[in-house]
Amino acid sequence: MSIEQVQEVIDKGPYLSWLGLKVLSIDKETIEVRATWREEWVANLKLMQTQGGILAALIDFAADFVLFETVGKPVPTIDLRVDYHRMAKPGDLIVKAKVIKLGKQFSVCEAYIYDLENKLIASGRGTYVMPVPEVNAKPS
Amino acid sequence: MSIEQVQEVIDKGPYLSWLGLKVLSIDKETIEVRATWREEWVANLKLMQTQGGILAALIDFAADFVLFETVGKPVPTIDLRVDYHRMAKPGDLIVKAKVIKLGKQFSVCEAYIYDLENKLIASGRGTYVMPVPEVNAKPS
Amino acid sequence: MSIEQVQEVIDKGPYLSWLGLKVLSIDKETIEVRATWREEWVANLKLMQTQGGILAALIDFAADFVLFETVGKPVPTIDLRVDYHRMAKPGDLIVKAKVIKLGKQFSVCEAYIYDLENKLIASGRGTYVMPVPEVNAKPS
Amino acid sequence: MSIEQVQEVIDKGPYLSWLGLKVLSIDKETIEVRATWREEWVANLKLMQTQGGILAALIDFAADFVLFETVGKPVPTIDLRVDYHRMAKPGDLIVKAKVIKLGKQFSVCEAYIYDLENKLIASGRGTYVMPVPEVNAKPS
Repeated sequence: MSIEQVQEVIDKGPYLSWLGLKVLSIDKETIEVRATWREEWVANLKLMQTQGGILAALIDFAADFVLFETVGKPVPTIDLRVDYHRMAKPGDLIVKAKVIKLGKQFSVCEAYIYDLENKLIASGRGTYVMPVPEVNAKPS
Repeated sequence: MSIEQVQEVIDKGPYLSWLGLKVLSIDKETIEVRATWREEWVANLKLMQTQGGILAALIDFAADFVLFETVGKPVPTIDLRVDYHRMAKPGDLIVKAKVIKLGKQFSVCEAYIYDLENKLIASGRGTYVMPVPEVNAKPS
Repeated sequence: MSIEQVQEVIDKGPYLSWLGLKVLSIDKETIEVRATWREEWVANLKLMQTQGGILAALIDFAADFVLFETVGKPVPTIDLRVDYHRMAKPGDLIVKAKVIKLGKQFSVCEAYIYDLENKLIASGRGTYVMPVPEVNAKPS
Repeated sequence: MSIEQVQEVIDKGPYLSWLGLKVLSIDKETIEVRATWREEWVANLKLMQTQGGILAALIDFAADFVLFETVGKPVPTIDLRVDYHRMAKPGDLIVKAKVIKLGKQFSVCEAYIYDLENKLIASGRGTYVMPVPEVNAKPS
């Protein structure tokens, strides 16, 4: 799976496009993505911090797409857990994800968000439904 | 705290405004809010489902703002957990939150997201930092 | 499913027996159980608080067994989240659980632990794998 | 902090002793511990799997004690999240933990449980309250 193929799937998704996601690298175990800051991310104009739901979306996206090479498509999220470590100031963010456990029925992946100074902003985990292997599958 | 006061805080926040949040009710233990669907929420144009990060943002927002009456302002999120129960089709969403445990150092609140047919779409919990009581506090 | 039938399953499980679990009530949506304090539960002899893993076991047990009426047996836990609200002093605990979402592939249930003065000690959620419906199932 | 000092704290705790915990290594960022299997851990005599609450206790213990070098004592758990990856068969378990984020108010740590064949059984995270720095602190 090439970076271009994954980027194409991202660019077709309205919310993923809105998050300004640019795939930096992908392999079977990891993915690294840059998210492009925009003013609408701001929770509070005094503190200018990025809202927690944006960070949650980035964790979920990256933890899901790290399975892309294995599964070939985004998969449904069962649940998502996010730890907030530090306030995210205006600026692009780097999101890195890895597989914790690749399972038959569901998989657990973990993602980390860094600012451009490499400070850890948030991290978390998602659990994902794995597709049932198709018998005599035809192209859909 | 009136609905208008809480709505005013929401309307000043870029991301909360973008989510089209309208407060329906608030008291010391609960809050109910309507979120206005927009095309950018969509994860995938084939399925047209709302992206999980939008649902996470709604859970976090409501679980935080249910403390508004008690604390008088939004508070930092320590962590957030979201369970995804059903795909959210295009359409506004209703978010209801309640306090699970009001603590001195941190509080736990829970939120539920329903579609307009009252089907449960997602639910979850956040843990929030409670402000340190100020001694001889002056207005900021 | 009678209380006696569920109690019998509990009494056959070494760890559940060790937790001294007594079913107080059960129906399709809720379960209520009493856990019998023992000295080995103590984390620290100065504070005498019950160790968090005991509370996690009670949350997981109750959230799983609230599905018993529907499923007919304990089911595998996918993941578990526990919020600790208050230190548990020596004494029996009451655990109440309810179904949040009964699903086809997996279900989410929630449990609350109270001390005998009805103070909330801990609460949390588990996600559980639902058994695949058997075709032409025979009694096992 | 030596292995002996940490082991001494463990051995004084009734539940930690019951879990048969033996510290294998500890430094500022990681801890590795062996837990000694006992029959009372078993959830179900047919499957002979270790109950999920035992695994939760091991995750919580290790994620907490990885802070021991920094803090000098066990600290209260705010919340705990456990992913169950594989059934744990009878046998000792190895638990490894590391710090994800050392904070001023609270810290997040992660732990992994392996069987003696190095298969990943469960993993998870806890959030811990950091002690308030004492001014003019005296030895207690």
